[in-house]
Amino acid sequence: YDAQYNRNIPFETASQAVRLYYLYNHWTMQAATYFFIFIDLSLALFEEPAAYPLPFLATSLVEVMCLLAFFGRLFHFAKVTPRDVFWKDAKNICIMIAILMTLVDLIIYGSLRISNIQSVRWSRPMRPIFLINFAESRQIRRAFRSIRNTLPEITYVFLLFMFSLLMFSLMALKLFGDRNLKTVDGLPYFTDYLSIVFEMYVLVTTANSPDVMMPAYNFSGWYCLFFITYVVINTYIFMSVFLAVVYNNYRKHLKNEIRKLVYMKRRKMVEAFNLLKVKEGAEFVIKEDQWKNLIKLVAPDISTSHRELLLRISDEEQKGHVDKKSFVRLADLLNIQVITMKLRSHPLAIWFPHMYNSASSLFIRSIVQHKGFVWMYDVIILINAVFIALDEKNPFISYAEWVFLSLYIVEILLKLYTYEPRTFFARNQFWNWFDTFIIIAALIATVLNTTLKSVTVYNSQQVLDIVFILRVLRLIRIIDSIQRFRVIMNTLINIVPTMLTFGGLALVVYYIFAIVGMEIFQGKVQFFAGNTSAQHASYCGNPSLKDSAFAHSKYCKNNFNNIVSSFIVLMELTVVNQWHVLASGFALVTHEAAKLFFITFHIVVVIMIINIFVAFILEAFFVEYSLEKSEVETAIEKKIQELG
Amino acid sequence: YDAQYNRNIPFETASQAVRLYYLYNHWTMQAATYFFIFIDLSLALFEEPAAYPLPFLATSLVEVMCLLAFFGRLFHFAKVTPRDVFWKDAKNICIMIAILMTLVDLIIYGSLRISNIQSVRWSRPMRPIFLINFAESRQIRRAFRSIRNTLPEITYVFLLFMFSLLMFSLMALKLFGDRNLKTVDGLPYFTDYLSIVFEMYVLVTTANSPDVMMPAYNFSGWYCLFFITYVVINTYIFMSVFLAVVYNNYRKHLKNEIRKLVYMKRRKMVEAFNLLKVKEGAEFVIKEDQWKNLIKLVAPDISTSHRELLLRISDEEQKGHVDKKSFVRLADLLNIQVITMKLRSHPLAIWFPHMYNSASSLFIRSIVQHKGFVWMYDVIILINAVFIALDEKNPFISYAEWVFLSLYIVEILLKLYTYEPRTFFARNQFWNWFDTFIIIAALIATVLNTTLKSVTVYNSQQVLDIVFILRVLRLIRIIDSIQRFRVIMNTLINIVPTMLTFGGLALVVYYIFAIVGMEIFQGKVQFFAGNTSAQHASYCGNPSLKDSAFAHSKYCKNNFNNIVSSFIVLMELTVVNQWHVLASGFALVTHEAAKLFFITFHIVVVIMIINIFVAFILEAFFVEYSLEKSEVETAIEKKIQELG
Repeated sequence: YDAQYNRNIPFETASQAVRLYYLYNHWTMQAATYFFIFIDLSLALFEEPAAYPLPFLATSLVEVMCLLAFFGRLFHFAKVTPRDVFWKDAKNICIMIAILMTLVDLIIYGSLRISNIQSVRWSRPMRPIFLINFAESRQIRRAFRSIRNTLPEITYVFLLFMFSLLMFSLMALKLFGDRNLKTVDGLPYFTDYLSIVFEMYVLVTTANSPDVMMPAYNFSGWYCLFFITYVVINTYIFMSVFLAVVYNNYRKHLKNEIRKLVYMKRRKMVEAFNLLKVKEGAEFVIKEDQWKNLIKLVAPDISTSHRELLLRISDEEQKGHVDKKSFVRLADLLNIQVITMKLRSHPLAIWFPHMYNSASSLFIRSIVQHKGFVWMYDVIILINAVFIALDEKNPFISYAEWVFLSLYIVEILLKLYTYEPRTFFARNQFWNWFDTFIIIAALIATVLNTTLKSVTVYNSQQVLDIVFILRVLRLIRIIDSIQRFRVIMNTLINIVPTMLTFGGLALVVYYIFAIVGMEIFQGKVQFFAGNTSAQHASYCGNPSLKDSAFAHSKYCKNNFNNIVSSFIVLMELTVVNQWHVLASGFALVTHEAAKLFFITFHIVVVIMIINIFVAFILEAFFVEYSLEKSEVETAIEKKIQELG
Repeated sequence: YDAQYNRNIPFETASQAVRLYYLYNHWTMQAATYFFIFIDLSLALFEEPAAYPLPFLATSLVEVMCLLAFFGRLFHFAKVTPRDVFWKDAKNICIMIAILMTLVDLIIYGSLRISNIQSVRWSRPMRPIFLINFAESRQIRRAFRSIRNTLPEITYVFLLFMFSLLMFSLMALKLFGDRNLKTVDGLPYFTDYLSIVFEMYVLVTTANSPDVMMPAYNFSGWYCLFFITYVVINTYIFMSVFLAVVYNNYRKHLKNEIRKLVYMKRRKMVEAFNLLKVKEGAEFVIKEDQWKNLIKLVAPDISTSHRELLLRISDEEQKGHVDKKSFVRLADLLNIQVITMKLRSHPLAIWFPHMYNSASSLFIRSIVQHKGFVWMYDVIILINAVFIALDEKNPFISYAEWVFLSLYIVEILLKLYTYEPRTFFARNQFWNWFDTFIIIAALIATVLNTTLKSVTVYNSQQVLDIVFILRVLRLIRIIDSIQRFRVIMNTLINIVPTMLTFGGLALVVYYIFAIVGMEIFQGKVQFFAGNTSAQHASYCGNPSLKDSAFAHSKYCKNNFNNIVSSFIVLMELTVVNQWHVLASGFALVTHEAAKLFFITFHIVVVIMIINIFVAFILEAFFVEYSLEKSEVETAIEKKIQELG
């Protein structure tokens, strides 16, 4: 049933339409859509400027294929929805326009290319539209909606902030403009209004913090008051106000969205109830048989005992039927994972009962279950940490590595011997999965490394790096032994799925900025690898960068020459520090106006997206702290207790 | 009555004790206490290492005087509180110990000084204890209590964060240690575990963001994944978790504190009620006469109409007496400022009624009250902004300045002519006060500047600077014309008083770190003013700093040679950027361990205090957004509406 998955696509109730609808929601179709979206987005890797160049014909063919797939998906969707609903939905219109525009762009670019005219593939920044607008990416769309709703309020604060920025810049011009002060590099200090505004904006991000103040401060101690006031007002107060506005809207709209979802779900469940209801005494109810059939249809992979439990909860007085109120609650009930804690007996106990229950076997199992066993391995991990820190060139230490590895493998085997394997690898046993994965990966990598070493002289650096990382990752296990740490870690692990939504949001914004950045800056800054002592390598192959802070800091590899390095530059810009050096560098090789690209990126990503991220983590932790169980969960727990 | 001011000092009820208690709470006594605390704290300006040196004898005499004043205040307090309560209070014990320790330190230091042995005034970091522990600084104490309560929870997160830091550092050592990579300055890259830990800690603060990554990234593109993962986990997730923990505790304890305060207040009011109650029918009440006398005693400066209003609210059914519930509410009622909006007639209308009400006068007044008047002045301000941005060397523009100044003065005079002066300068008319202050100050400063110019050739730079700042500040007025901006500004203005508490908190922490920093680093870094091209000026007078980033960036004036520059350095450290350059610089002139001082400062100020500040601004804005009027305020409003 739709309501279970919070889907709310109105659909026709004809029999063929239902089959089409099932096909539409089948996981293979969804996977195919995501696959084509992925292909479409990753085309940027192979198109000019490419990380791995492919001819234009190949990439454009793939793109047309993707567009066809999207169109097919949309057509399928149009078949299963009533026509007026389909055409009223902005999402679908949006996708169609995007497909059309991309086709037009492809044709124009292709024909211009044939006649050897250089042009711009302007439709590429539109690709994330497919990611956002297909019905599957509900979460990302919700995040974007939340941003859009925040915009008016944040705009006012932003205007006020800009006003303050401009005013302080004016003051700075008046105070320092005529002093003939020089910066560290001997450049004139605060003489041009526009460059002052840029410097002051950078100061808000704290990226040039004491440096921009030093010439004035060295001139007179009083001037530092100006900068301190500025930082307090603009960095601390205004940036916190931005966070407050974003957070407040996030909470408000989250609440609204949830309320809307709950309402939609309830309405659907009531509709379903009306379809199935039977009059029983004074009220309409659903018979137990019909209810069971329904559940079997909706959730076929549910166990019988689980179904019985659900029935008992829905039909508390065991009257043989379910009333409306309980039925509406069913959607929530189905979403709760009841962990069926069966006391399965160990497979070894079934296959070799005598041996498994012998005295020595029991002794081993009691040891493994003892607290001391965990402590012992904590100590082993600590010793391991020391060994890792030591130099691994020493052959003794590289042998010790084998010892530790085998100790860990023995641990896992012993645990598997003691605990039932399916319980050990249950879905909620994150740490067991983690341990086993790390150890097995380390084992494979170490063996691989050793064989490579013995077979060839060539020591594969990449494999060795992975071995190192895996070794260190093993140390994380020590966290699991301390209760308080486990709580924090569990909260962090719990928010990972929602963070993926956030990752999608970031991906969309990064992708757009990366494509635009590549169009503007591609090829302007070159990186020359290795030990080229050539002169042009010192200024990134562009004479405009001679003696710039960009070249001095050896930032040549921070360029927009392909999508991968673009993403890395954008990541560095997100971290904010030294972003003015990057911005000034790219402004030098193009035009002063290029700084606008970087300022826009800062506003969008740091002021909007990062604040949403922070708001999201704050909210996740508050929920974890208050940890109020929902009504439905409590109902289940009560029933479980009742049933023993 | 005590409960009105949220005071909760138990006191004896004898007649002389009450007089002593009144004296204790008299504003002059409180002002005197603050004055002596201020003197005591500002002693750091005059003591070695001094901004304005005074002989040791003078400063120590002043300090002893302050200590005597504190002791007197404490003695007075002991007189008005029961003995067992006094001795149970940790605050009082704390103050006494601080006084004793300071005396001991003074004696030891003095006698050692006489025998010419250099020693340390170790009691100086204890001075803020007086600021915290005197009963008057309730707010700061509450903030400290909140920090103390946050500590356990934050410690766990911090340990986890340190664990992650150490683990990533270990990985970095393994991955990059043997690569023979060099930093931009040609130093070995990531070879020593301790320095890696420091670099990675700095990376969390983003202060060395792309630089620390560049050597590895230039070597191989894949290594940037390591740094990106690190930044995402440690900078984004962990720092947000810190904010979440601090914010969560802040909210929780704020709620607790308020609940406790409300409880205490209620208990006192009930006590007072029990003293004054008279049996009336079935219930105990307070007679109207007695109630009026009480109000006159407690709040003598309240107007008769205001008192009548309060009575009407407390005695809603006009039975001539006040019952217990309404009486308990009195404390809150008294705290609400009812703005007595009287339609006072203009004094000119009283003195010269004929002239003030003549046709031309009415015309002027209608113009001033018209919206166009405000718009006209907004346009004038904008034109003024353009003129300010232009070069003021041009004589025409400097005359224009006079024109603008007179225009603003005319505006204020016109407004005073139209509106009643006492209404115009009412307590809640922030912007009127602001305008008038700015204009009058600008007038005085401009006149002063002109006279100085005409009398002497010497153009006083400081006066000119103030004139510039005042001129630009005038532009703020334009905010007031836009409704949305006014709302945001009002919120910001409303949180100023609470921000002062925060300022007190910051002052205490800064003071302690400044004193400790001065003891460790005084005189190690010298600043040579002006155009000294002497060699030692380029490395701040300390050969250890030769070729250091500290000296290259001309940070010599960032030193701990007196309390003022210490505060400025600490401010720069709070802004975080380049703090590793400062830390490394001071580590070079002393010892590597000096970095611990800077790391501690970062943990205390940036992770704890700044997060509290952010939490506080978030909360203030949320309250402003939800803007729910308290029960009591609603009661008053209802009554005002009822009464017309």
